[in-house]
Amino acid sequence: MSRTAAKTEPRPEASFAGRLNAAATETEHLLDRLLSAAPADREIARPHRVVEAMRYASLGGGKRLRPFLTVETAALFGVRRAHALMAGAAIELVHCYSLVHDDLPAMDDDELRRGRPTVHKAFDEATAILAGDGLLTFAFDVLARPETHPDAAVRIALVGGLARAAGLGGMVGGQMLDLAAEGRFGRNDTPQGEQDVLTLQAMKTGAILHFCCEAGAILGSAPKAKREAVSRYGKAVGQAFQIADDLLDVESDTATLGKAAGKDAAHGKATLVDLLGRDGAHARLGELVKEAESALSAFGEDAAILKAAARFVAERRA
Amino acid sequence: MSRTAAKTEPRPEASFAGRLNAAATETEHLLDRLLSAAPADREIARPHRVVEAMRYASLGGGKRLRPFLTVETAALFGVRRAHALMAGAAIELVHCYSLVHDDLPAMDDDELRRGRPTVHKAFDEATAILAGDGLLTFAFDVLARPETHPDAAVRIALVGGLARAAGLGGMVGGQMLDLAAEGRFGRNDTPQGEQDVLTLQAMKTGAILHFCCEAGAILGSAPKAKREAVSRYGKAVGQAFQIADDLLDVESDTATLGKAAGKDAAHGKATLVDLLGRDGAHARLGELVKEAESALSAFGEDAAILKAAARFVAERRA
Repeated sequence: MSRTAAKTEPRPEASFAGRLNAAATETEHLLDRLLSAAPADREIARPHRVVEAMRYASLGGGKRLRPFLTVETAALFGVRRAHALMAGAAIELVHCYSLVHDDLPAMDDDELRRGRPTVHKAFDEATAILAGDGLLTFAFDVLARPETHPDAAVRIALVGGLARAAGLGGMVGGQMLDLAAEGRFGRNDTPQGEQDVLTLQAMKTGAILHFCCEAGAILGSAPKAKREAVSRYGKAVGQAFQIADDLLDVESDTATLGKAAGKDAAHGKATLVDLLGRDGAHARLGELVKEAESALSAFGEDAAILKAAARFVAERRA
Repeated sequence: MSRTAAKTEPRPEASFAGRLNAAATETEHLLDRLLSAAPADREIARPHRVVEAMRYASLGGGKRLRPFLTVETAALFGVRRAHALMAGAAIELVHCYSLVHDDLPAMDDDELRRGRPTVHKAFDEATAILAGDGLLTFAFDVLARPETHPDAAVRIALVGGLARAAGLGGMVGGQMLDLAAEGRFGRNDTPQGEQDVLTLQAMKTGAILHFCCEAGAILGSAPKAKREAVSRYGKAVGQAFQIADDLLDVESDTATLGKAAGKDAAHGKATLVDLLGRDGAHARLGELVKEAESALSAFGEDAAILKAAARFVAERRA
């Protein structure tokens, strides 16, 4: 683990990878613990099958980029790591629920996720629907616990922010626009230009990534200017994430991705890669990384890891 | 609306019906307003189709028993009606989401609900899944708003309580046990005796009805003994509700119910009516009404409406 080279200053990229892995490991352990505990307060039977499906959907995979962003933005404001990990775990539960439901036959009809059968393939459709519902509900249970933060006002701000990022104005609305973009409900609903695609993506994947960063500022009761800085960073990272995803969809293959590649083209969906071309999309990524770095300039070296994260998001290959 | 008879004391049943209708009308207007507002905070496109499906699923029907229970238990503790209605609306959103998802082809595969096509019939399956997700998420958005209660500690207690009642230890877990009771996943998961059936029902429908009453006490920062009294009442009402539902399933027809009748027998699911017989089930209902009334004895006449509600739940014919 430790390097023998006598560097006093590790390159931000090197320490970034370590910090990303650390957050991922801690998130995995925390989710495992949270999903192992018997539901409190009631004398209930344990509905094993749906618990197993929830664990299958949320353990053993993923880069845990979302909890990482929450943990690292929270660190800028001196938040206790245990609190940030709880909030990050709640966000990750919402992310995992959205994957389970989006993969359903009636939605994107995907059979592969993180290199494994999707939940409805490994279990069945009814269990997948319920497991998604259970994960989404559990996220708010986690946020409501004093373990997440001693101050109820902080916890309720997290609940409101997560509900908005996951709801009509975010994930749910974005997935609806995405299905419409395939022309399912008639072509008149189909996004046409760059602004439509940007809006769809800002809702479907951007809102929750943006909220990961805002959550760090909420946990730290950050002053307004710093909260806005972190928010600007989160917005740029969210956009970069989606463009990188669209590039991967055309430049990578299913084995590397661990999920079906080439799906956008197959569904006739316009992406920014179509609209800007591959060179244009790479150029846009470069601009977004600069925007993300510039947003955090006031934090100086404290934000080195987050700046490296923006580069990682833009340049990732899987 | 007003009676000409010169009664000075209206019978509790008469004023109960008026109070139930009043809460239903106010809840309808509130849900309509909440579901009309543009999602705040983000420059988003309005994903019309899922909004329409969410409105279809939650407006224009239902007795609104759940918000009524919250409003009336809250009234015992002097809670502002506007606060109780917000909390009741959030619970109703969760109730409506659960109906949309339970009706899906992969779940109970129902085509009729409140005398109208179910959401996946009126729209499509993908929209129904998303509308359910949107309603569940929106419930927590509503609870997080200062409009629900000025005290963040009260709001976060509501969030935690609703998440537990709706989650693994409640609604989601209960629906899983219910699917298992049909023998879908092999007969070894099937509940066999009275205790299994009671547990399943306490989770699937009881937990949320129970929470409706607890929410009133939470909103009113009720002292421990009174909170426990209201909780005992809610538990009895939840059990009575389910037994009455099972009796309706065998004693009523589809036109009266507005949903398919005779489904339990068709699915080979044991209910308390099977285990106790119809006479036994009616006797049990009588006991539960007595238990509900006795739980509220300390409130005297203030609880007359809630006691009438327990009788209504036990004796309802649709």
